[in-house]
Amino acid sequence: MNPRVEAIAGSLIREVAALKRPTSIDLGLGEPTLQPNRRHLDAAMAYALEYGLRYTPNAGETELRAAIASHYGYPGMDRTENVCVTVGSQEAMYVAIKALLDAERDELLVVEPAFPSYVKMAALEGVAVRRVEMRQDEDFAFDAERIVAAVGERTRAVVICSPCNPTARVLSRAAASHLASALRARAGDPVWLIHDEIYREQTYVADAGYLAAEYPWTIVTNSLSKSNALTGLRLGWVLGPAEFVAQAVKVHAWATSCADTFAQRVALHVFQTPGALSEHAAWYEGRRADVLGDLRESGLRFIAPEGAFYACVRLPEGVGSTDAAYALVERFDVVAIPGIAFGEGMEGWLRLSWVGTPESVRTGILRIAEYARQSTPFGRS
Amino acid sequence: MNPRVEAIAGSLIREVAALKRPTSIDLGLGEPTLQPNRRHLDAAMAYALEYGLRYTPNAGETELRAAIASHYGYPGMDRTENVCVTVGSQEAMYVAIKALLDAERDELLVVEPAFPSYVKMAALEGVAVRRVEMRQDEDFAFDAERIVAAVGERTRAVVICSPCNPTARVLSRAAASHLASALRARAGDPVWLIHDEIYREQTYVADAGYLAAEYPWTIVTNSLSKSNALTGLRLGWVLGPAEFVAQAVKVHAWATSCADTFAQRVALHVFQTPGALSEHAAWYEGRRADVLGDLRESGLRFIAPEGAFYACVRLPEGVGSTDAAYALVERFDVVAIPGIAFGEGMEGWLRLSWVGTPESVRTGILRIAEYARQSTPFGRS
Repeated sequence: MNPRVEAIAGSLIREVAALKRPTSIDLGLGEPTLQPNRRHLDAAMAYALEYGLRYTPNAGETELRAAIASHYGYPGMDRTENVCVTVGSQEAMYVAIKALLDAERDELLVVEPAFPSYVKMAALEGVAVRRVEMRQDEDFAFDAERIVAAVGERTRAVVICSPCNPTARVLSRAAASHLASALRARAGDPVWLIHDEIYREQTYVADAGYLAAEYPWTIVTNSLSKSNALTGLRLGWVLGPAEFVAQAVKVHAWATSCADTFAQRVALHVFQTPGALSEHAAWYEGRRADVLGDLRESGLRFIAPEGAFYACVRLPEGVGSTDAAYALVERFDVVAIPGIAFGEGMEGWLRLSWVGTPESVRTGILRIAEYARQSTPFGRS
Repeated sequence: MNPRVEAIAGSLIREVAALKRPTSIDLGLGEPTLQPNRRHLDAAMAYALEYGLRYTPNAGETELRAAIASHYGYPGMDRTENVCVTVGSQEAMYVAIKALLDAERDELLVVEPAFPSYVKMAALEGVAVRRVEMRQDEDFAFDAERIVAAVGERTRAVVICSPCNPTARVLSRAAASHLASALRARAGDPVWLIHDEIYREQTYVADAGYLAAEYPWTIVTNSLSKSNALTGLRLGWVLGPAEFVAQAVKVHAWATSCADTFAQRVALHVFQTPGALSEHAAWYEGRRADVLGDLRESGLRFIAPEGAFYACVRLPEGVGSTDAAYALVERFDVVAIPGIAFGEGMEGWLRLSWVGTPESVRTGILRIAEYARQSTPFGRS
């Protein structure tokens, strides 16, 4: 067997999620609980019944590629040749890392806290990883200065997820612009930015920054998974300069051939229906307001979500996040993801997802607060 | 960019296919022209409307994995843990190559003529490739002796497609058994066999050999693409020993997360409907009889298809297959794939697909025969 594959450890997130009991309050979920809009599925079904489900071109249906490119309209990446349709944003990121980085030469810089898949993909490819942690005393705000300072001699790409899973922080326009100008000012080959925009339609602040709007060597990954409650559809895309996309399509072609034709028709219907990409946005706005109320009431230290559907809460000093996650399931029947799953810098925190029912989320948060009270040195006495 | 990706050349098959005009007779197609059975799609749609489309476990729905494993019932691989559901058989093969082979140590032996994707995937992974060509004077019959003799010091896996794209030959039971016993007799670590069974439901001979039935270190890749005219659904699977599948699931999880939930429900309906996997088999039997008649009438030297939906025909001595493919489009308005696309050993041949209408296939074959007559030294004079 390939030792690089054998060396990849299991996922702590899945390990904790597997503890869930039928009675558990699940704040561990990484996917929407809404039902998808059936009109998009109906359109794909009508297509399939009329035309069957044949291969599309490797890079995806031309009409869909064009619709995606023009929807975002990023400078220099607003045409068909700037898009490759992929198997969810997971394959979009995989293809980006694989097309960009040479394991013998290059290094990937991961802005943490971060979802673990970037590091796992790099490990699978044998690509060295450098990490730069946002500071918990700044509530993990994106710090452009700090990111630029971490770019090393061998760093050829930086991956940033904003809105962020797990911190729910959003890169500001000022930070995006600062990052772009600092990287432009560097000598030598350009450093690529990979912006994981998967939570883009769950953005609750006005000044969100988009790296592709600021910097030409940006690659954007996204999908319908979170915006339209279609995680299981596996339909994503990677956007970038045409010379990058030409290489990305090769990786995609030989790894998976093309994305599912049914899924591509769903996506085409979404992109051709005005407002459809953000049809769930109002629901998330409302749920965010609820959860902010719950968090304030709880007395926990928390980071107010600027995006995504998570909220991070601080554990009492000295309480390990994995221990806390296990204790919460055993003693309080609540599933929450330990911060350590997202990088060393998030040890001592929990990531809560608030896509469940308002009652269950509120109850879960209050139980975590109770656990925290019992676990503080004072509470324990 | 990653130089390994940049070095991968475009596809000759796609280059030739792109020459097609609206009037062309297309004998280049690599996918069924039948419509899929809508009952499978309806079942998936009913599921999606009731439950939405959420992530499945990385390895696929447990029920589907179990159904696939038990359908084939290969010794030692008839349980849930022997299956990983993938994005078509393309990802199944990619995952197999990646999980098995260490680029620094191992080599992949490809039995040619072969579809070019195995070599491309190995190139993408930096894995060295050795090739063993079946002999054209034996009509490219699978020769177990010859394959075993080509296994080198570093060879850790052998990939065989049977029924074969492009030759339409089928590995016999005797050849499979011979191959298995010769590999068992070798000293040292076992050499893996990867059997691409994608054309399994298009088998027209009684004594087809299945490597997984003969040899425990076998990995099988397959999909619904060819059996059920669902190429665009991107639903495949890799079957193998549990310790292999555990590693394969990691590659799959980090490259694509999981297969499409809609597609998995289609597959579940297929596997739960007796006979559904072979519901198109009779159509192919009938079309094969037609094409055998056409080929006999044409006077061309051809290989009678034992499986798949191709037939290979010999060009006159000295005529290059790429030149012939271009000339056929230009002068006879027929698309056919040059043999050289499948390995040096198939230079001088064309691969014809016979999934079009009976009239178009017959006309295409007769035009190729006319081209051949005009291109022989005698015909030219």
